[in-house]
Amino acid sequence: MTQTASHNKSASLADIAQLCGTTKATVSRVLNAKPGFSVRQELSDKIHEAAAQLNYRPNGIARSLRSSNTPIVVVLGFHAAWLAPPTVPIYGRLLNSFTHQIEAMNASCMVDLTTDDDLSPKWASLVPDGALVIPPLNRPRTDKLFRDRIPFVVINEKGADDISCVYTDDHQSAHIAIKHLVDMGHTRIAYINQQHLAHGLEYHSSLPDRMNGYVDAMQQYGLEPMPGYDQYMDPRDYFEQIILKHRPTAVLCYKSETMKHLREFAVEAGMRVPEDLSLIGFDLLVPKYHTDFQFTCIDIPMEPMGCEAARILGQKLNNPNHHEQVKVESELIIGQSTAPPAG
Amino acid sequence: MTQTASHNKSASLADIAQLCGTTKATVSRVLNAKPGFSVRQELSDKIHEAAAQLNYRPNGIARSLRSSNTPIVVVLGFHAAWLAPPTVPIYGRLLNSFTHQIEAMNASCMVDLTTDDDLSPKWASLVPDGALVIPPLNRPRTDKLFRDRIPFVVINEKGADDISCVYTDDHQSAHIAIKHLVDMGHTRIAYINQQHLAHGLEYHSSLPDRMNGYVDAMQQYGLEPMPGYDQYMDPRDYFEQIILKHRPTAVLCYKSETMKHLREFAVEAGMRVPEDLSLIGFDLLVPKYHTDFQFTCIDIPMEPMGCEAARILGQKLNNPNHHEQVKVESELIIGQSTAPPAG
Repeated sequence: MTQTASHNKSASLADIAQLCGTTKATVSRVLNAKPGFSVRQELSDKIHEAAAQLNYRPNGIARSLRSSNTPIVVVLGFHAAWLAPPTVPIYGRLLNSFTHQIEAMNASCMVDLTTDDDLSPKWASLVPDGALVIPPLNRPRTDKLFRDRIPFVVINEKGADDISCVYTDDHQSAHIAIKHLVDMGHTRIAYINQQHLAHGLEYHSSLPDRMNGYVDAMQQYGLEPMPGYDQYMDPRDYFEQIILKHRPTAVLCYKSETMKHLREFAVEAGMRVPEDLSLIGFDLLVPKYHTDFQFTCIDIPMEPMGCEAARILGQKLNNPNHHEQVKVESELIIGQSTAPPAG
Repeated sequence: MTQTASHNKSASLADIAQLCGTTKATVSRVLNAKPGFSVRQELSDKIHEAAAQLNYRPNGIARSLRSSNTPIVVVLGFHAAWLAPPTVPIYGRLLNSFTHQIEAMNASCMVDLTTDDDLSPKWASLVPDGALVIPPLNRPRTDKLFRDRIPFVVINEKGADDISCVYTDDHQSAHIAIKHLVDMGHTRIAYINQQHLAHGLEYHSSLPDRMNGYVDAMQQYGLEPMPGYDQYMDPRDYFEQIILKHRPTAVLCYKSETMKHLREFAVEAGMRVPEDLSLIGFDLLVPKYHTDFQFTCIDIPMEPMGCEAARILGQKLNNPNHHEQVKVESELIIGQSTAPPAG
């Protein structure tokens, strides 16, 4: 990355007043939404526009930080619980690549482990120069960031049109997985949904997108989606009620960790993976790091996502009006858990 | 934890001047160590004492943060690279328990992923209310924290007498491991040192303490330390040059991950673990989370260490003169990798 985030002192109320041909007091009342104070809509719009253009931010602390030499980028939505084993941290790879890029811009990266998703008063004690927002996307949070004029980038989820983000296309990724199985001759392909998400991930767009991607891909190949895809079942229940009863020859898993469980149950039941049951899942956490058996998976490109997010945030630090939505491509990593169906 | 960290506005130069019967200008010059300005040693000591007593801190930003409702605790020395697989993050368990305690005090916890160990200018952009310091202990860093009067606690390393810390006794832990092996009848016990430490951990007191603990425990049991304990060898070289040549019946490993490698080499060479070779190591990362085979290990009590550190830091936020050094006990977790020697 050649671009670096040079840092300008932010605008004052006086600058905005001058640009709008009004007084500092009026600007202050408009921007702070003083109750009982009214002003022409046209002037109000003009003041807000000027504030955005000049990158004015209302908070005293924020101002002092901005005028220092080192912009502070805060990571919001990373939960302390993710640091505790048994799994490697969700978004760990991403944060690592993001931080290296942020460092290269001479900015500082702080992971906020305590700010609530609903932006409790804690938020007030440090107003950062920029933010990386980890899903789930939460409208109160992004509204607050817009209101405080803190440039931010959301990762791993496509936000509304006005939200800068770096994301993967889960619908397309599900299609890639189904194509891999169909190409090997599978027709009885099931999908195991997520039972529940990790702490702090009560909802994520991947839930509907992967499921719908499965259904659409199956239909595109003239195949019938198999039962169970739209339910949230425990892997053990799923194995007994879907796999043993309906006998799919392959299962696409919402989460790669589920493959590990299904493989154990299959072995217990005298089935071989992949000969009797092919398994493919999203995210390479388990396949690559937690076992000697390499599972086939759709890798979520965490490092490129982190680099892209840092690049966009760097541009926004220079120009708060900069806006980008970038899609990064998932990659099929073929391991030992998929093979043509037996017979 | 019943105690919460209530938060007082910090003292001004005027407060200190009044307490010492001198002027604000003199206090400022003494505290800021203005070059060319001299004052009686007695008065200088008095001013520094008063500043400590009143919890005065020199930085403007620090003051604004302190007067806000939410104290900010910054974690220093946690490296972004630790978030990237294949291993679970060093100190991840600790940070998780620490954060929960900090949250319970209505304080905020931010992990600084970018401040250099040598405290580059970046440090200036956010002066926190308190800090958790992750080893290696670095005197410039702790000096800077003392100078800025930021209360801090060091974890997993015993600092000098003036440094508040929570630590384990590695020397004693090595003794526990050797005792476990001796009790099972082993006499030919080797030690594999660390080849090199992880990024950001170029030195740690555990290096000499575990090694000396091994030597002292062996001598205490009337046994001869086996060759190789004081070298830094690649696990493969160690296996070939020490294990195959000198035939220990048990090996104590600086790091639990090494056990995994040694077991693989042993199996390749036709040896059985634990029948032909017992393995024991420090830290439960690998034994518990990375394999189905449970290794015997000395667990470093990360959760209690995190809780204790938060408790001490909470007390220091209320009273900057509070000082504690707390030792937490390691625990022997017996797995499948140790057994009496064959024959």
